[in-house]
Amino acid sequence: MNLRVGIVGATGYTGYELLQIIHRHPHAQLTWATSESSAGQKICDLYPGPYDTRLIRLADAPLSQADVVFVCLPHGAAMDAVAAARDAGCRVIDLSADYRLPTTELYQRWYGHAHSQPQLLAEAVYGLCEINRDAIRRAGLVANPGCYPTTVNLGLWPLARVGVLGPQVIVDAKSGVSGAGRKPRLGSLFVEVNENLSPYSIGYTHRHIAEMELILGPHVPQLALTFSPHLLPVNRGILSTIYIEVNADLSSREVHQIYTQAYSNEPMIQLLPPGQVATLRHTVHSNRLAIGLTPLPYPGRWIVTVSEDNLLKGASGQAVQNMNLMFDLPEVSGLI
Amino acid sequence: MNLRVGIVGATGYTGYELLQIIHRHPHAQLTWATSESSAGQKICDLYPGPYDTRLIRLADAPLSQADVVFVCLPHGAAMDAVAAARDAGCRVIDLSADYRLPTTELYQRWYGHAHSQPQLLAEAVYGLCEINRDAIRRAGLVANPGCYPTTVNLGLWPLARVGVLGPQVIVDAKSGVSGAGRKPRLGSLFVEVNENLSPYSIGYTHRHIAEMELILGPHVPQLALTFSPHLLPVNRGILSTIYIEVNADLSSREVHQIYTQAYSNEPMIQLLPPGQVATLRHTVHSNRLAIGLTPLPYPGRWIVTVSEDNLLKGASGQAVQNMNLMFDLPEVSGLI
Amino acid sequence: MNLRVGIVGATGYTGYELLQIIHRHPHAQLTWATSESSAGQKICDLYPGPYDTRLIRLADAPLSQADVVFVCLPHGAAMDAVAAARDAGCRVIDLSADYRLPTTELYQRWYGHAHSQPQLLAEAVYGLCEINRDAIRRAGLVANPGCYPTTVNLGLWPLARVGVLGPQVIVDAKSGVSGAGRKPRLGSLFVEVNENLSPYSIGYTHRHIAEMELILGPHVPQLALTFSPHLLPVNRGILSTIYIEVNADLSSREVHQIYTQAYSNEPMIQLLPPGQVATLRHTVHSNRLAIGLTPLPYPGRWIVTVSEDNLLKGASGQAVQNMNLMFDLPEVSGLI
Amino acid sequence: MNLRVGIVGATGYTGYELLQIIHRHPHAQLTWATSESSAGQKICDLYPGPYDTRLIRLADAPLSQADVVFVCLPHGAAMDAVAAARDAGCRVIDLSADYRLPTTELYQRWYGHAHSQPQLLAEAVYGLCEINRDAIRRAGLVANPGCYPTTVNLGLWPLARVGVLGPQVIVDAKSGVSGAGRKPRLGSLFVEVNENLSPYSIGYTHRHIAEMELILGPHVPQLALTFSPHLLPVNRGILSTIYIEVNADLSSREVHQIYTQAYSNEPMIQLLPPGQVATLRHTVHSNRLAIGLTPLPYPGRWIVTVSEDNLLKGASGQAVQNMNLMFDLPEVSGLI
Repeated sequence: MNLRVGIVGATGYTGYELLQIIHRHPHAQLTWATSESSAGQKICDLYPGPYDTRLIRLADAPLSQADVVFVCLPHGAAMDAVAAARDAGCRVIDLSADYRLPTTELYQRWYGHAHSQPQLLAEAVYGLCEINRDAIRRAGLVANPGCYPTTVNLGLWPLARVGVLGPQVIVDAKSGVSGAGRKPRLGSLFVEVNENLSPYSIGYTHRHIAEMELILGPHVPQLALTFSPHLLPVNRGILSTIYIEVNADLSSREVHQIYTQAYSNEPMIQLLPPGQVATLRHTVHSNRLAIGLTPLPYPGRWIVTVSEDNLLKGASGQAVQNMNLMFDLPEVSGLI
Repeated sequence: MNLRVGIVGATGYTGYELLQIIHRHPHAQLTWATSESSAGQKICDLYPGPYDTRLIRLADAPLSQADVVFVCLPHGAAMDAVAAARDAGCRVIDLSADYRLPTTELYQRWYGHAHSQPQLLAEAVYGLCEINRDAIRRAGLVANPGCYPTTVNLGLWPLARVGVLGPQVIVDAKSGVSGAGRKPRLGSLFVEVNENLSPYSIGYTHRHIAEMELILGPHVPQLALTFSPHLLPVNRGILSTIYIEVNADLSSREVHQIYTQAYSNEPMIQLLPPGQVATLRHTVHSNRLAIGLTPLPYPGRWIVTVSEDNLLKGASGQAVQNMNLMFDLPEVSGLI
Repeated sequence: MNLRVGIVGATGYTGYELLQIIHRHPHAQLTWATSESSAGQKICDLYPGPYDTRLIRLADAPLSQADVVFVCLPHGAAMDAVAAARDAGCRVIDLSADYRLPTTELYQRWYGHAHSQPQLLAEAVYGLCEINRDAIRRAGLVANPGCYPTTVNLGLWPLARVGVLGPQVIVDAKSGVSGAGRKPRLGSLFVEVNENLSPYSIGYTHRHIAEMELILGPHVPQLALTFSPHLLPVNRGILSTIYIEVNADLSSREVHQIYTQAYSNEPMIQLLPPGQVATLRHTVHSNRLAIGLTPLPYPGRWIVTVSEDNLLKGASGQAVQNMNLMFDLPEVSGLI
Repeated sequence: MNLRVGIVGATGYTGYELLQIIHRHPHAQLTWATSESSAGQKICDLYPGPYDTRLIRLADAPLSQADVVFVCLPHGAAMDAVAAARDAGCRVIDLSADYRLPTTELYQRWYGHAHSQPQLLAEAVYGLCEINRDAIRRAGLVANPGCYPTTVNLGLWPLARVGVLGPQVIVDAKSGVSGAGRKPRLGSLFVEVNENLSPYSIGYTHRHIAEMELILGPHVPQLALTFSPHLLPVNRGILSTIYIEVNADLSSREVHQIYTQAYSNEPMIQLLPPGQVATLRHTVHSNRLAIGLTPLPYPGRWIVTVSEDNLLKGASGQAVQNMNLMFDLPEVSGLI
C-alpha cells in the first residue's frame, strides 16, 4: 500500500523536484498538487516533462486524502497552509523556513514579521535527518532544513557534538541558481548570472545563519559565524568551503576518526578519504552530501569542503528522506 | 572635435553596449542618456562598470545638444522618440524595428499595430552598411537592422544580387540570450536556459522574416523562407546555418568568387576559406560577421554558415558603423 | 534473481552512465567492469561518486560470470571484445558503431577499415527498441544505435514506414559535449566550447548518416539526407531540427495521427501536442525521446523537432532498454 | 612611430590575448610572433579570428627587430627565452613565473627546479604597476605578476603598506578556466568543469602564495596565509573573497579612506562604494580590478572582495600596462 502524498506549491523548483521524486518512489504516489497561480493547468503545461497531474487551488485540495503533505511555499505563506494540513490530520513536511526556528521571537528577529502559529511552531521538529532521526520518526510536523545550513551543520556536526569546534567559523558558500527560485527577477536572468560570480548578503546578514547557530551554537561557546554566499553560474548544487579551528590538540587521524564515528552508517553522507576535497560533481543529481577534510599547516586549523545538490539533500530529497523516516520506510527509498 | 551623442533607452542590453562603444570611440562622446524607469540613477548603479553618467527622462533630455541620437527602445515605443529627435534637428539611428519596413501596411501586418509616423517612415534608410552605404551617408534617419536578418541578408546577398539564389531558403538560427532583452521573464531565467536549447517561433512566424524578404525578395522570385530560431545558452552571438539552392550551374570556385567580389573590401566581413565553417567564436566581442560556404553533394545545394555578435554587428556595433558612415568618420572607428 | 552484468570500458562517459543505471536497476547488478588504462583503480578514484568497484583488464575479466556484457569501447576496438564475450556465452550489447551496419562493405566504406568479425556482424540486431523489438528479444548480440541516428530515425519513422516521407531531409542537429567522449582534446576544452557554437562535419560527411540511411532508406526512394551537427555548450542532450517534405496530401491532423498510431503505446516516446516544439529540457536526465511537429505554410513541408539525452536514450539508457527486452524484464526497469 | 612588438609563445590563451591587445593598440604593432608547435601556420588557422600573422620558431625570430618582447611560455621554459631576448638588446616582459621571485633559493623551493639565469633574476622588476611604477619605467626586464596574486596583493596593499593588516589572511579564490591554459587535460574538459565547482590545491600549497608573501610579507609580521583556489565554470575572471583582520581600532570610514588614499588616482582600480561587493561582471573584458569592502560585526574583521579578468589585469592587460610604463606611453593606451 502506497503513501498518499499531497504537494502544496508544486510549480516552484523544489515543488517540481519533489513531484519527480514521488513519481519514482516505490512506496508513495501523488494524490493532489496545488498551485494558486496555475490552478487548472497540468504540470506538463508548465514544465517540459511527462507529468499530467492537473493543479488545483489549496482551498480545493482534499487535504485529508493525503497521508503526508509537503508544503513548498515561500516563508510567510507556508505558515497557515501547514496549519490547515495539520488540522486535517495530515502529517506535514514544510520546506519553507517558517517552522525551523524554535521560538516566535527568533523567527520575528530573522524574518521580520510575526509568526501566526506559535503552538505549531513549538511542536515542529527540525528535519536534519542525521541528527534528529528519532524525533523525526514521531513527528507530526517536520521543518525541512535550509539548503545552506544543511551543508554547514552536517559538515561541522561531528566536531561540534564532541565539543572540539572553535568559535571562529568562516563559511564561503557557492550556490547554483535554482536556489533563488523560479520567480522572474533581474538577478536571476541568464545574461546576469552566466559568466559571472556574485557574492551576496555576505558577512552576518543572511537568514540561514539562524539555523547554523541553532544546531552548532549549543556545542560551541562564543560561536562567531561568518557566512558569505555567492551566486554560481550552475543550475544546481552548493559547495561550502569552511574555515575552522579545532580547539584541541587533535591529530589529522583523530579528526578523521571523529567524522568516521559520526557518519560511518549514514547512507547519505559520503565522507571523502584524506586528501580529497568535495566538488559539486560529487553530489549533484543525488541525495548525498560529500565532506572533505583538509588540514592547514597552522595548528588546529582546517578547511572542510562540503557539497550537496541544493534541490535534493538541500531541499526536496531531504524532505523525502524525512517522509521515509516518518512512515517507517527504508530511509533511502526513492532517493537512489 | 567630437560628435555629441545622445542615447534614448541606455539601460537595456543594446543601450548599454552602445554606451560602452561610445566611451571607447575616438571621435564621439556621450552627451546625455535617458531611461524612464531609472532616471536619476547613475549607469554604474545598474551595471557593474565604471560609467557614472546620470540618467535622465527623455522629456528632460536636451535633444538639440546631440549631433546624433540613438534610440534603443522596444518597437512601438521607439516611433515617437525618433520623431522628437528628428524634430529637434538631430540625425537619428533607431535600433528598434519601427522604421525598418518600407510601408505602414507592412509594419501593421507584422507588428500588429499602426505606425504613427508615416512620413518619417518614408524617409528612413535601412542601415545595412554593406548594402546601403551611400544612402546611409546622406540619411537623416537610419533604421538599424535586426540581429537575425543581418546574418541572413549579408550571408546571402552576394548570391541574391547576381540572381542565382534559389527560392527555397531554410534558416536554422541560434541566438544567445541577450537577444531576448533585459526584462525579467520566466523564459530568460538562468535555470530555464542553461543546459537547454529551445526552438521558438519556428517556421514562418518570426517578425524578422519581413526584413529578409525586404532585402532578398526583390532578387529571388518566389522566395519561400523558412526561419527557425533557437534560444542558445550563451550570452552573446548568433549562428545561422542556412540551407540554400543555387539556381545555376556554378562550380564551387565560382560561388566563392561571387562572395569574394561582393566582400573583398568590406572591413567587417570575414569570408572564410573554402572548407571552413563559421562559429560563434569567430565574431563574438567583435563587429565582424563571418561567412563559411559548404557545398553539398547534391547539385546546386549549399550550406552557408554565418555568425555575428548579436549586440555588435547585430545591433549596437552596426549602429556605430552607421554613425561613422553618416558623419564621414572612418567606418571602423571605435569598432576594433 | 538479478541479472549479472559485465561492462567493458566503464570509464568513458557512456560506460559510467551505464554503471550508474545498473546500480539503480532493481533486477541487475554489476559483476565486473573493465578499463585498460585504469585497471587496478576504483571507479570512485576516477569519478566523484560512491562506486567502489575495482576495475580490471578485459583479459582478466571472468566473462562467463556475466549474463549480459555491455561493450563501451570506441569503434574498431569494440569488434573483438564483442567476439570474446559472445564466445564466452554471454549475450552482448555493443554501444560502439562496430555492429550497426549490416555488411562489411558498408562498414569499410564509412569507417575506413576492415571488419574482423563478419559472421558476428551478420548475426547482430540493430537495437532501436521501438522498431526492432521482437528481434531484440531474441538477439545474442545487439548493436546499440548511435545518438544522432536515434533522434532522426525515431523522429521520422512513423512517416517513413507508411511511405509518405519525401526524399529531401535536412537535419540540423545540436549535441552536448559528452557526445565527444572523455578523451582530452583541444576541441572539447571548456574555454573552446563555452560561449561558442560550432558546426562540424556538416553536409554529407558524418558517419552517423549510414544508420539513418539504413533505417529510413528502404522506405524513402531517392533519400537525400543533409546532416549538420553542431557542438553545443551543454553537458548532455541532442536536439535535431528536421526539415522534411511529406509526399502526399495529408492534413495536419492526419500527420499527427500517423505519429499517434506509431507511438501511442511507447513508454519512452513523448509525442508533444500540436503547436509544441521539443527542447532539450524535455528529455535530459531521462530515457525519453520527445517529438514535436510543426507545419510550414508551404504545402507538405514540416519541421520535426526531436530531443533526447545523448547518454540515455542516445546510448546507455537505450542499451538498458535493450537489456530489459532481451531478458524479459519490464522495458522501463531502471529507467524511470 | 609605433613600438615594435615580438611575442614568444603566441598561441596560448595569454599569448593570443596579448596579440589582440597589440592589434588594437594605437602605439604598438606586432613585428613577429613565435610558436614551437605551430610554426609555419597562421594565427587564424589556430584561433577563429582575423589575424593572419604567420608563426615562426623562436630560433628564427629576428629578436633585435623588436623594441619589446613579451614571453608567454610556461615557467621553466621562459627562463632562457627571456635571456635570449635581453641579449639581443630588447626590453622584456615575462608573463611566466620565472622572474617573479627575488632569489634562486625561493624559486627552487616553490617551483622545484633550479634557476638558470641568476643574474637576470637579480635585475628583474616585479611588474605590479600600482606598486612598482617607478622601477617598472626604468626596467629592462619586468616579471609580470601572477593572476591570483594580483587580486590579493592589490586588494590588501593599502592596509599592508600602512601597517594595519593582521597576520591571519584567508583567501577563498575562484577562477575561470582560461587560467588553466590551452593544453588538453581531463580536468579542463567542458563536461568536467561545466555545472561543477572544484576546490584545488587549497590550504598552503599553491605556488602563487610566494608572490603574496613577497608583496605583503614585509609589511605584516607573522603573515599566515590560507589560499583556496576553486575552478569556476566560466571562461574568464577571478573573484577573491578575502577574510582579514585589521589590527588597529579603525572605523569603517577610516578603512575606506585608507583605500581611497592609495587608489584615488589609479586608472585601473575601481574602488566600490561602501556596501557594494565586487563581482566578475565588474571587470571581465576590461583591464580593471574592482575592490569591495564589507565590515563584519566582529571588531576589526572585514571581507575584501576583489575581481579582475585573469587574462587582462591578471596577465596580458597588465603586461601591456607595464609596456606603456616602460616606454612612456599613456598608461591606459590600448587598454580601454
